[in-house]
Amino acid sequence: MADILAHYSEHKEALYSSVLADILDSLGCRTSALPPDVRPLRSEWKLLGRAATLSAAPVDAEPKDAYAVELECIDHLQPGDVLVASTQGDRKSALWGELLSTAARAHGAVGAVLDGFTRDAARILAMDFPVFAAGFSPLDSKGRLDGMNHGRPITIGSCTIRPGDWIFADIDGVVCIPAEQAETVFLRALEKVTGENRVRAELARGRSAREVFKEFGIL
Amino acid sequence: MADILAHYSEHKEALYSSVLADILDSLGCRTSALPPDVRPLRSEWKLLGRAATLSAAPVDAEPKDAYAVELECIDHLQPGDVLVASTQGDRKSALWGELLSTAARAHGAVGAVLDGFTRDAARILAMDFPVFAAGFSPLDSKGRLDGMNHGRPITIGSCTIRPGDWIFADIDGVVCIPAEQAETVFLRALEKVTGENRVRAELARGRSAREVFKEFGIL
Amino acid sequence: MADILAHYSEHKEALYSSVLADILDSLGCRTSALPPDVRPLRSEWKLLGRAATLSAAPVDAEPKDAYAVELECIDHLQPGDVLVASTQGDRKSALWGELLSTAARAHGAVGAVLDGFTRDAARILAMDFPVFAAGFSPLDSKGRLDGMNHGRPITIGSCTIRPGDWIFADIDGVVCIPAEQAETVFLRALEKVTGENRVRAELARGRSAREVFKEFGIL
Amino acid sequence: MADILAHYSEHKEALYSSVLADILDSLGCRTSALPPDVRPLRSEWKLLGRAATLSAAPVDAEPKDAYAVELECIDHLQPGDVLVASTQGDRKSALWGELLSTAARAHGAVGAVLDGFTRDAARILAMDFPVFAAGFSPLDSKGRLDGMNHGRPITIGSCTIRPGDWIFADIDGVVCIPAEQAETVFLRALEKVTGENRVRAELARGRSAREVFKEFGIL
Amino acid sequence: MADILAHYSEHKEALYSSVLADILDSLGCRTSALPPDVRPLRSEWKLLGRAATLSAAPVDAEPKDAYAVELECIDHLQPGDVLVASTQGDRKSALWGELLSTAARAHGAVGAVLDGFTRDAARILAMDFPVFAAGFSPLDSKGRLDGMNHGRPITIGSCTIRPGDWIFADIDGVVCIPAEQAETVFLRALEKVTGENRVRAELARGRSAREVFKEFGIL
Amino acid sequence: MADILAHYSEHKEALYSSVLADILDSLGCRTSALPPDVRPLRSEWKLLGRAATLSAAPVDAEPKDAYAVELECIDHLQPGDVLVASTQGDRKSALWGELLSTAARAHGAVGAVLDGFTRDAARILAMDFPVFAAGFSPLDSKGRLDGMNHGRPITIGSCTIRPGDWIFADIDGVVCIPAEQAETVFLRALEKVTGENRVRAELARGRSAREVFKEFGIL
Repeated sequence: MADILAHYSEHKEALYSSVLADILDSLGCRTSALPPDVRPLRSEWKLLGRAATLSAAPVDAEPKDAYAVELECIDHLQPGDVLVASTQGDRKSALWGELLSTAARAHGAVGAVLDGFTRDAARILAMDFPVFAAGFSPLDSKGRLDGMNHGRPITIGSCTIRPGDWIFADIDGVVCIPAEQAETVFLRALEKVTGENRVRAELARGRSAREVFKEFGIL
Repeated sequence: MADILAHYSEHKEALYSSVLADILDSLGCRTSALPPDVRPLRSEWKLLGRAATLSAAPVDAEPKDAYAVELECIDHLQPGDVLVASTQGDRKSALWGELLSTAARAHGAVGAVLDGFTRDAARILAMDFPVFAAGFSPLDSKGRLDGMNHGRPITIGSCTIRPGDWIFADIDGVVCIPAEQAETVFLRALEKVTGENRVRAELARGRSAREVFKEFGIL
Repeated sequence: MADILAHYSEHKEALYSSVLADILDSLGCRTSALPPDVRPLRSEWKLLGRAATLSAAPVDAEPKDAYAVELECIDHLQPGDVLVASTQGDRKSALWGELLSTAARAHGAVGAVLDGFTRDAARILAMDFPVFAAGFSPLDSKGRLDGMNHGRPITIGSCTIRPGDWIFADIDGVVCIPAEQAETVFLRALEKVTGENRVRAELARGRSAREVFKEFGIL
Repeated sequence: MADILAHYSEHKEALYSSVLADILDSLGCRTSALPPDVRPLRSEWKLLGRAATLSAAPVDAEPKDAYAVELECIDHLQPGDVLVASTQGDRKSALWGELLSTAARAHGAVGAVLDGFTRDAARILAMDFPVFAAGFSPLDSKGRLDGMNHGRPITIGSCTIRPGDWIFADIDGVVCIPAEQAETVFLRALEKVTGENRVRAELARGRSAREVFKEFGIL
Repeated sequence: MADILAHYSEHKEALYSSVLADILDSLGCRTSALPPDVRPLRSEWKLLGRAATLSAAPVDAEPKDAYAVELECIDHLQPGDVLVASTQGDRKSALWGELLSTAARAHGAVGAVLDGFTRDAARILAMDFPVFAAGFSPLDSKGRLDGMNHGRPITIGSCTIRPGDWIFADIDGVVCIPAEQAETVFLRALEKVTGENRVRAELARGRSAREVFKEFGIL
Repeated sequence: MADILAHYSEHKEALYSSVLADILDSLGCRTSALPPDVRPLRSEWKLLGRAATLSAAPVDAEPKDAYAVELECIDHLQPGDVLVASTQGDRKSALWGELLSTAARAHGAVGAVLDGFTRDAARILAMDFPVFAAGFSPLDSKGRLDGMNHGRPITIGSCTIRPGDWIFADIDGVVCIPAEQAETVFLRALEKVTGENRVRAELARGRSAREVFKEFGIL
């Protein structure tokens, strides 16, 4: 594992979310992707790290201890972590923002992914801290969204993310790779990238798509 | 007021929609933001001005006097105005376009915000005229949307905008600041920006997020 | 026809989807635009070509002959074609991707339009191959979406596209121009562009929008 | 025509919306049905009459002359009419209610169909006046919805209804039969009902569905 | 107040949600109705009582103390209360069911209203305990929805409900009457019912709707 | 198994979908329910049988062999089967109707469940053949929906149904019980019904809900 993942920054460039999803499909894991409205703030960003999970929920009123769970979660982040937050698909306020990004990065986190909204997007872009979110709101979460717990499995759409799973995110979306399958998945994905390069070359010179698919079995 | 707002272009750079929404929240005004699907055509745009309102509605057929209310509204625009149009969330055609942008700018308007669609986006971008809209359509509004009245309060999502209210819009969204609260809101927002700068510095050097929040009470 | 369309690349620059939609409106064709969620991956792209149609549908399980119809469709593409695919608005996986883009371009296609998702967006952008899609997913279509037939009329939203119709797509959206009306539509659209230029100049110098509209009848 | 439609109450019992939609399909009219959320308040109701159209739209504020178009439309109703109202799919208030039902019935109308909400449903049920609506709201339309015009074609979903078209509505939904096709449609529908009776008998005694369909071509 | 509300069961029969909403509109309270998808399980039910509020939220995992807040809320119910629960519009499981209905009734509650789902609908109907909900699910809330607090103001759609407000619900929907306005609202509503009876009689005998509205100003 | 299920009609009366979902939850199967918009045409219906699956998909045009897969599926139905059809959530036409109900019943099927629309609802109600569907349309499926295959696993919402699984449906919704767990599930569900009866009695006499839950652990 160390061989493969220690140097993940180089694999990050060689890989992409779609090839990882293909390998997970082939292993019977067909719900590997987060919902398609979770998008990068900057389309060039690629993100790879271990999931640190946060579960939040919409609320009707300000709780006694606003932000308590969120802040505790931030303070538990480890180098290489990707904070992955469920907001139950909330569309009323922004769970994430620039100060949380600053704190997360200071603890070593490499990015954040959430099924809700972010704010302070201009400064997050200026920080070049990869955030993948479902949209934007100027409204703070206080009295609108509250942290429930962190460090437990969460479900976003039909994808379950457990702490320690690997998250790979790019312009095509966000894929969760179960920790115990990571080595297999990354190895096979690198192999498939090579295969795709050959297919691409064949197709680019005008060969019949049917023939090429018949020969290589890759699309 | 004049002291604060006359030179709004400099404050525009120092401020952002999220800090304004926070101040409005603290004053009990928790529906200050337009719906999150109202987005800038160019994410770098910031917009600040006084609301001039237009109310439009989807229609089944071409009215006798197509565009009449829209054109009258344009001709009443004053320097510094932001045209804010309600289309009742229409998704069938574009109320806004390049020629209206040209006319609005010629009357001194600094931007336009609508809960419906725009068209001619390429030329609006070339004009660098800040338009915030819910999407794009090549279809004209004639026979699909019609102006009902202008210069009266409108409601978009749960936010009510009255003529003369202040509109601040950026990548995070669009905030409406009631005219009578503007001075308070802008002053407090500038103060909060200063406080956030200190918090950011503390967080960036790796202090516990809980401790920093406990000390400054800002997030 | 040849005079007008043979040199379409120059007309492509002079034209835009909104003026084409206006001419089609004036001819009684008011459902000329695809749904507004079909967006260009790069907002600067303009696309003009003849429709080659593909009909796909969401499925529960992997069919015997995955990709068969899609590949056959690709192999039938002709120079100047725009592949237009219906997925019945599927939001579960990506019908389109980089290898299909490569194969389509190798057969002479100038772009692709679909009411579903694409993947491999980074490499499609790098290819500069204009794809207009409703979003992104890392998930492959195998066992999720399947080609039903190609070369037959398809319906996307309220717009019917027949093979051979002309497709014009830009930042404002995608317009379908029925083949038999293309000559009329393109000629009138070029005329309207000229009229709009005059209106723009009048509006830009601050004349009343009502007066200018009264004089020119163009908006 | 008179022979067929004068005695429509007896045909009303023999017919149903699905067989009428089948005949319209066979004549190439495939958008004959209103959207499926337009439902009868009482599932046993059947409604047949000539369309009298009303176009309404959501508004931001109370107009000068609230209800004016609605009341004028009611006062123009003729015996046998079905009031068909478009609200642009409004979901904020009820265009229809008991007093309008009372007035409409007093003018001879046999029912009402709208793509928006009704209120006073208990008393409309007590009146046994067939109303087909998209739901219920206790909120009045004043300042929320306003009549735009009446007696002009309207479009609900993908179905266009012109004054004088025939409306047939039952538990399965609402079908619009263009006036000029009504005689053909009603005659063929009665014939198809007869054919279906034979097919039903064959199927009920356990014959292979494929065989029966092969023999009769009806499903 | 006692005179009016002590005998509310008789007023309940004379009143209906739409007339109460009209009076609230006339007092400037235009967000008095819950969203239209909150429907009675039995359309004949009418419900009147004082709001006892419960706030729940969707969660990713089973909390330590499942049901704790819900049960505490039930045990605090007083005779004449209507339990009003916010679930943040959850559509994944049923917050409400037969056993909670049984317990609520045993504590004197007269009904329950929620913006989420119920289950055990057959037995709730058999109990004749008025429940107004947004739908049905066989799935229990445990690990899907959790109580956050009770006895505090909640917001459902654009309507805020405070403990002690009056709830009136019938086939047209659910209206919240602020406690301090209740006496005025009920009195005026009873008056308006009388006025409507006269208008109905005038309309039923075929008078022009415009004339009747001009004379009585009621619709 | 035979002991339990052979006499399922009596268990059908004793059981309900919510108690079955609770047992499945307790066994770790938390996606046992179909989406909540799949509703019985008659709310009193209860349905229990073995799943026979059909997969259909929306299409753009009439296929060569309309209805072929549907009819073949019907002809393969066995006594005690429940036809469960996926339409990919189609909302454009009705897959199901009276003639298919007639044929299905003649082959011994006890009901039908689909995530799309039905038509001929009046006659299906008259037949008393339990159909659970997502709504109604008068439009036939021909050229709108087509059968893809039958007798293979299908997925509706997040619930996967395999041929031979047990389907239990009532007013609360539709639950799928995997064949290999059926004996356990039905036995435990009958036990839980007994427990609930005791809890209900305790609650009905006004005991604290918290105490009763503490004592019995059932809600």
